[in-house]
Amino acid sequence: MNTIAIIGSGAIGGFYGAMLARAGNDVRFLMRSDLATVRANGLRVRAPFGEFRIERPTAAATTEELGPVDLVIVAWKTTANRELPRVLPPLLHERTAVLTLQNGLGAEEEVADVVGAERTLGGLCFVGINRTEPGLIVNPVEGAITVGEFGRPASERLREIVALFQAAGIKARATDNLAEERWKKLVWNVPFNGVTIAAGGITTDRVLADEGLRRLSRELMTEVLQGAAALGFTIPESYADFQMARTPPLGAYKPSSLLDWQAGRELEVESIWGEPVRRAAAAGRALPRMEMLYFLLRALAAQNPRQR
Amino acid sequence: MNTIAIIGSGAIGGFYGAMLARAGNDVRFLMRSDLATVRANGLRVRAPFGEFRIERPTAAATTEELGPVDLVIVAWKTTANRELPRVLPPLLHERTAVLTLQNGLGAEEEVADVVGAERTLGGLCFVGINRTEPGLIVNPVEGAITVGEFGRPASERLREIVALFQAAGIKARATDNLAEERWKKLVWNVPFNGVTIAAGGITTDRVLADEGLRRLSRELMTEVLQGAAALGFTIPESYADFQMARTPPLGAYKPSSLLDWQAGRELEVESIWGEPVRRAAAAGRALPRMEMLYFLLRALAAQNPRQR
Repeated sequence: MNTIAIIGSGAIGGFYGAMLARAGNDVRFLMRSDLATVRANGLRVRAPFGEFRIERPTAAATTEELGPVDLVIVAWKTTANRELPRVLPPLLHERTAVLTLQNGLGAEEEVADVVGAERTLGGLCFVGINRTEPGLIVNPVEGAITVGEFGRPASERLREIVALFQAAGIKARATDNLAEERWKKLVWNVPFNGVTIAAGGITTDRVLADEGLRRLSRELMTEVLQGAAALGFTIPESYADFQMARTPPLGAYKPSSLLDWQAGRELEVESIWGEPVRRAAAAGRALPRMEMLYFLLRALAAQNPRQR
Repeated sequence: MNTIAIIGSGAIGGFYGAMLARAGNDVRFLMRSDLATVRANGLRVRAPFGEFRIERPTAAATTEELGPVDLVIVAWKTTANRELPRVLPPLLHERTAVLTLQNGLGAEEEVADVVGAERTLGGLCFVGINRTEPGLIVNPVEGAITVGEFGRPASERLREIVALFQAAGIKARATDNLAEERWKKLVWNVPFNGVTIAAGGITTDRVLADEGLRRLSRELMTEVLQGAAALGFTIPESYADFQMARTPPLGAYKPSSLLDWQAGRELEVESIWGEPVRRAAAAGRALPRMEMLYFLLRALAAQNPRQR
């Protein structure tokens, strides 16, 4: 497996694509806004171990130009997934696997609707990567990714993908239960990606310094656990305590959604807040604070983009 | 009873004070920001029946200059009540009554802490009055006020105050249960004064047009009813339905808190949201959405004033 297409040239796609290209894989990027810059200047990455540049990456504005590959990595925002039915088919050969590295819940389902469940995998990125300008990706700390099959335990194919990442210098691990991992990631993302925006655009340290917002964040974590439990995933309260405890060291941190919000970009409201609320409700569990956060963020997002 | 002191020269104090002065009462205004303008140009009011001006109102920056009166009307924002211990004593003679026309819960208690419960009365204003510039009060529709004794049924004194208002052309009625009336007023104020701000600074028609925010508003009303019930006040769900139904005709309405917010003025976060949540909690009833709204608004208010 070494022909790889990257869908989306934002922070995640740019970083993992560049790392995989640097390791000798044939990586092809679907790009829109960054295409001209990357064709002219290459793709630059500032990683924890130093800076490097992919001088002449294969990049195009359509997947027809990229052609069939062994692995597709979907790395744009979930709000762009309505374009998957147009974008994915030209990339497929008989055994192409499609790995979505997107946030929240629902991405695997959206990919599977186009390419079939058997081709679909998903992953979660635990990183703080930024695309600070077109063609420049900045990743200050070594992150990690967790990847899994969609609705199945880890497979031989999955282990090959993990090995591919690891060979490229990316910390990666396989999971047998991708769906549970997604709920676990929501334990932090639901409160902090949301409350930082709803409370006026403030960093996580200021959320924690406000007694009410701190309590609200912890209560939202409990609601995520309740939603997960309604769907059969048992995550202990101690996991939420751990997620609270790991936040102060982040300092004046801006979660990715807050960065999106402040830049006037679309918010992943449905995948991070809407879909979890709907799945919990369908399983008979109301999550009042999380639903309220969803409603407020959806309304705020409808007013974006605006200058702040 | 015809010497009256008005504490606060905002919309409510300016309007009722001017109406009472116009009817021949000796009305004395405690003013801060508007004092120079009102001394120079008088106090102008645009009422539904026409415009009038109190040419030379008695106005001062301290209550020592105003001296003892029969009736004190507290009409500044609850956020200024920390000054009551300094402001009220100079206005008192042996039988002075103090009527607070402030929003939310807790104002009677704050007045009573200074002057004693027996002097204390409270009232609710159902109006849409604005102080559009210093010394100019605009009241487009005839409103009404409901007044009551603090913790007691209506008294002879209360009926005299109602008559005083009525003689001045103000629609007024007495209530035997002021505390219940305050909870009833919260049924509308808690959702609409709050959600319009938390959802980004939008008018009530836009709250209603958003399916999520509309549902949230109705759910917040139910929580107000639950809080009231925990304190022994039975308000039927039909009252909440009525409050929802009366909102669309208001059109692109800006609740007073939204006007405060957009003008960078202090929000009455504690009296409208904080105190009701605390009283319900003390009575054993958690109100999750209302508490969340309180936490968010308190955090937003801490970032005000800012230009919008």
